[in-house]
Amino acid sequence: MKPGRLIAVGVGPGDPELMTLKAVRTLGSADAVAYFGKAGNGSNARSIAAPHLRPGIEEMALEYPVTTELETGDPAYRTMIDAFFDEAAKRLAAMLDTGRTVAVLAEGDPLFYGSYMHLHVRLSPRYACEIVAGVTGMSGCWSAAGAPIAQGDDVFAVLPATLAPDELERRLADCDAAVVMKLGRHLPKVRRALEKTGRLARAIYVERGTMQDAAMMQLAEKKDDDAPYFAVVLVPGWNAP
Amino acid sequence: MKPGRLIAVGVGPGDPELMTLKAVRTLGSADAVAYFGKAGNGSNARSIAAPHLRPGIEEMALEYPVTTELETGDPAYRTMIDAFFDEAAKRLAAMLDTGRTVAVLAEGDPLFYGSYMHLHVRLSPRYACEIVAGVTGMSGCWSAAGAPIAQGDDVFAVLPATLAPDELERRLADCDAAVVMKLGRHLPKVRRALEKTGRLARAIYVERGTMQDAAMMQLAEKKDDDAPYFAVVLVPGWNAP
Repeated sequence: MKPGRLIAVGVGPGDPELMTLKAVRTLGSADAVAYFGKAGNGSNARSIAAPHLRPGIEEMALEYPVTTELETGDPAYRTMIDAFFDEAAKRLAAMLDTGRTVAVLAEGDPLFYGSYMHLHVRLSPRYACEIVAGVTGMSGCWSAAGAPIAQGDDVFAVLPATLAPDELERRLADCDAAVVMKLGRHLPKVRRALEKTGRLARAIYVERGTMQDAAMMQLAEKKDDDAPYFAVVLVPGWNAP
Repeated sequence: MKPGRLIAVGVGPGDPELMTLKAVRTLGSADAVAYFGKAGNGSNARSIAAPHLRPGIEEMALEYPVTTELETGDPAYRTMIDAFFDEAAKRLAAMLDTGRTVAVLAEGDPLFYGSYMHLHVRLSPRYACEIVAGVTGMSGCWSAAGAPIAQGDDVFAVLPATLAPDELERRLADCDAAVVMKLGRHLPKVRRALEKTGRLARAIYVERGTMQDAAMMQLAEKKDDDAPYFAVVLVPGWNAP
């Protein structure tokens, strides 16, 4: 039996219309589809792709045993999540061994901070893997905000909000444009770092990117410090006419 | 007369199938389409979108008076290019004033290092502007290379190859993952900076992204220093299983 192909399909940042023609075609011809999600919460990637799944296509839900309940640096988190990715890769391998083409749905772009990457490193040495690039979450955010982010010789940086306060400040001061991601409970720290580096006035807060219930505002005008894990702050770098 | 709308349409990195459903729908309903290109060379963005342009749609070619013949820091370059964008904005404004919906084609994503941004800053104060996010050139490149680029708490940076050698080294050493863009004649400098910072072994050279004639290889295996302006080097940051 010739093993099947694994195809990572970027489904974009949330708006189902931001899926690519290639993603739609790929889903139309795949034998099975797999997606990550949290037990009980469903899968964002599946919701985005739903209109393009063949009726009756075989589905494999890969449900995280843990998401934000534990710090990613916690050894218990690492143990649980590594075992989860090992097991998910095993389930996919079993399916690929039957010769089926399996599409793994990935929010945004599969190889840019995506969970699919954990499958890729485990399976690409043994199976043919193809990547269908997608519109990233951050592109969706700055497009929805109408905020030109970087131009010309700008240095652009993606910074996780988990960085230590002084490290976050140093890096914000050292680039022209930035996206700070994984905000969650780190928003007060991010706000202070932007203030200290003189960047608060141009910072834009975006929640739920290009979803229908997206919310965005100048960060300086946001009154509270509540932010979901996937909210981002955009720091546009280019402002000249 | 109610003024028309300006819609920036990201057409993705090159493969026409990496256009989004929204880009295709938008082109189907626009009254006119505008695109940048070099006189005599045609427009990449137009070539990508060609299958989705309505027959007979009004077209406006915006032809750069200069591209890589002069340094972008040269005052003569700035004068010529500013006058060009002023004139392009004027031509679009005249079309918008007749109430027509005009789509501006943008390679990759419109607000990420795109020429459309020069029109946006000139026209968005006066006209309704909408942005259709696109797959960026760099997403197309790391997807084509099957190279997981950044994960978890990685700091990711986009660095122009035009940076001074020590600056390029400092920044490469200071991030987990990077894309170095606008290679052209700067490839030898980029190669040295990667070598000095211990990153040459994982650097991937990509030329013409997801075009049909794409070329990619480990940079360490590239024998010459020839690179077109739009070639990039990927420096993947995440390598753990």
